[in-house]
Amino acid sequence: MDSLRDKIYSWLKKNRENHVAFLQELVKIPSVQGNEAEIQYLVANKLKKIGLEVDTWELDGEQLKKHPYFFSSREEFKGSPNVVGVLKGTGDGPSIVLNGHVDVVPAGDITQWDSDPYQGHIIDGKMYGRGTTDMKGGNLALYLAVEAIKGVGLQLKGDVILQSVVEEESGGAGTLDAILKGYKADAAIIPEPTNMKIFPKQQGSKWFRIHIKGRAAHGGTRYYGVSAIEKSTLVLRHIETLEKIRNKRIRDPLYNNIPIPVPINIGRIEGGDWPSSVADQVKLEGRIGIAPDEQIEEVQIELEEWLKDLGSIDLWFRDNPVKLEWYGARWLPGSIVEDHPLMKILSNKYEDVLGKSPIIEASPWGTDGGLLSQVGQTPSIIFGPGVSTMAHFPNEYIELNKVFEAAEVIALTVIEWCGIYEADN
Amino acid sequence: MDSLRDKIYSWLKKNRENHVAFLQELVKIPSVQGNEAEIQYLVANKLKKIGLEVDTWELDGEQLKKHPYFFSSREEFKGSPNVVGVLKGTGDGPSIVLNGHVDVVPAGDITQWDSDPYQGHIIDGKMYGRGTTDMKGGNLALYLAVEAIKGVGLQLKGDVILQSVVEEESGGAGTLDAILKGYKADAAIIPEPTNMKIFPKQQGSKWFRIHIKGRAAHGGTRYYGVSAIEKSTLVLRHIETLEKIRNKRIRDPLYNNIPIPVPINIGRIEGGDWPSSVADQVKLEGRIGIAPDEQIEEVQIELEEWLKDLGSIDLWFRDNPVKLEWYGARWLPGSIVEDHPLMKILSNKYEDVLGKSPIIEASPWGTDGGLLSQVGQTPSIIFGPGVSTMAHFPNEYIELNKVFEAAEVIALTVIEWCGIYEADN
Repeated sequence: MDSLRDKIYSWLKKNRENHVAFLQELVKIPSVQGNEAEIQYLVANKLKKIGLEVDTWELDGEQLKKHPYFFSSREEFKGSPNVVGVLKGTGDGPSIVLNGHVDVVPAGDITQWDSDPYQGHIIDGKMYGRGTTDMKGGNLALYLAVEAIKGVGLQLKGDVILQSVVEEESGGAGTLDAILKGYKADAAIIPEPTNMKIFPKQQGSKWFRIHIKGRAAHGGTRYYGVSAIEKSTLVLRHIETLEKIRNKRIRDPLYNNIPIPVPINIGRIEGGDWPSSVADQVKLEGRIGIAPDEQIEEVQIELEEWLKDLGSIDLWFRDNPVKLEWYGARWLPGSIVEDHPLMKILSNKYEDVLGKSPIIEASPWGTDGGLLSQVGQTPSIIFGPGVSTMAHFPNEYIELNKVFEAAEVIALTVIEWCGIYEADN
Repeated sequence: MDSLRDKIYSWLKKNRENHVAFLQELVKIPSVQGNEAEIQYLVANKLKKIGLEVDTWELDGEQLKKHPYFFSSREEFKGSPNVVGVLKGTGDGPSIVLNGHVDVVPAGDITQWDSDPYQGHIIDGKMYGRGTTDMKGGNLALYLAVEAIKGVGLQLKGDVILQSVVEEESGGAGTLDAILKGYKADAAIIPEPTNMKIFPKQQGSKWFRIHIKGRAAHGGTRYYGVSAIEKSTLVLRHIETLEKIRNKRIRDPLYNNIPIPVPINIGRIEGGDWPSSVADQVKLEGRIGIAPDEQIEEVQIELEEWLKDLGSIDLWFRDNPVKLEWYGARWLPGSIVEDHPLMKILSNKYEDVLGKSPIIEASPWGTDGGLLSQVGQTPSIIFGPGVSTMAHFPNEYIELNKVFEAAEVIALTVIEWCGIYEADN
């Protein structure tokens, strides 16, 4: 295999420059939810050039919304296509899904970025921009891995199914639709930003909305009203306490180095409608993390019950209980058995390429691996070149070296997993 | 004078029913900011029928925005007319402005209303609806007072200038424009909801916006970010402390029965843009009350300085100070000397009509009386039939009896202030 490794390494080295430029092209497209068409056509084109059979289709909201695991903030996907490229094997080897999403979260407060989030500036071997780490850099590693396999002239036995999906950041409708179209395999690798760690377990998560009531009054006599904004601070504190309780329970050693294994994040707040009026309502929107061994439903019940206790913290909530709404996205937790053959191959190839043992941990966030494992019966490993500390951040970046290292590890893993077809045998 | 009082009383009694119906018509029009044309044409029509010289004009944003005391959330007033009706006196008596605004604050959370906020349902002598108390009921008292004076056949010496203005709830641009057009007088009465108390002093107020920074991160690794939502709870608490300090200072006995003489109200909050991201910014919008003896500018400096102390509460604010922005509306504080002749006349007429001494207090909120006193040199008294506990509330209502009592007190006050012209003298 040594000479094969050398060939892959050399191919990647030779093709580095034009692929860095290609990553820049990908980053320049602000592919936030609803704006994914341009990048997907670019990806489809790339996969065709590599020589894959490419399938491009718009998600069918009508069909999707009937599925119990469908979640999205929208039901209409016109202009938001999925792309799947298949590298057909000879048929007698295990198949693999390589999955990456092209949607990115919004850039947020632009003033916190040192440069335009949609330019892909490179400084000291790092490319900056929204989506570099989550996960266009990881996606590039997939294109590189497949192209390298073709480039060094190999024919595999098992199929490689490269899924370029939309909607990961909003609940996984893209991957769900790909699964429902039959794009499954014996296992999967998803290069979400793990900082080159291997994540056999993934946290799930679910979005929720909390409605807090107040009582309006003129701001000049605010003592006659009840401020929903003031009350919301009690709700926020109460939720923090639940987060502490839930995380104390987690004993899985894979989480040893993670400060908060299953965080509850309140990501949006909005309330009141007039500076001179006491706010009569506040809306909180957040996500609750679900441990790999938890059922989504039990977590929902726990939060529901917990919020009922607010009445013992403040009498106001007895007569005016907060309203909890489950909406939008959810990511199923996922896991692959730690001694799964793909885990072993990936770990070995990591060691071959990087010269050290990989770190194996549990993922602190949900990925489409939950859907692939639970709906697509495709056990999934998360392994990618980005760093999750940069995901959803201003000044998000990716180290370009790591993209190419990940590509090398993934290429070698795919080759061993799918098996090489040799005409002479 | 006794027989005059009887005449006014009888006129009001005889004309009660059709004026209650007219109030209902006024309440049925949702005259929120930008939607005042319909109600103003109705008022103009009414004033013409009474026999006033009526002037209807749209505010000139271009001119207004050059004025140092102009504040509004808009600069374009197309479709938002002012109406002024003048009852010309014979010229040798003091003049009076009767001022009322037709704009109402939004109805807020409709589910907290027992009935449609724009219907004017009457139950047990109370009319319910947005704007009944603040201040369409007070406005009706003005139309009634003037119509009663005409109705009993009196000719006054001084001019009565009835101002039906827009934009009171957003900073007073309507009254400012009326003043700039020359509609001033020797004194003014504004029937804002005082619950029949007499307010010689009025709190001013000013809107502000506070921008709080966080640092975005993926919600699943929220410990890598800094939540602007969490930080906003510290800012809210810090502002509450300032409110306590500012109110401890107030010694004016007119404020003895007011729980918080100059409240700071945070009326709106908004922040974050994604449930699964750590919020990188939160925006608070509020109003700070200004005591009658304070300068707006000194209050602004106090809040600015106070917010700088946040760094000693949480180190985050040292490197990421909150940004304070003064925007939108401000109401000048106002006052009339307590022994002003109009104060005496109004108090006496109150006693004549109600058979008891009036309660004299300081207004807990700003009114257009600040502009009338400070820009229009028209010292103003606030006295009206509504209850401020109902202003800006769901299920806002007005007691119809009080509207007619206020009309009687105001009619008699205007008659004595302006003086009766008697042809025989």
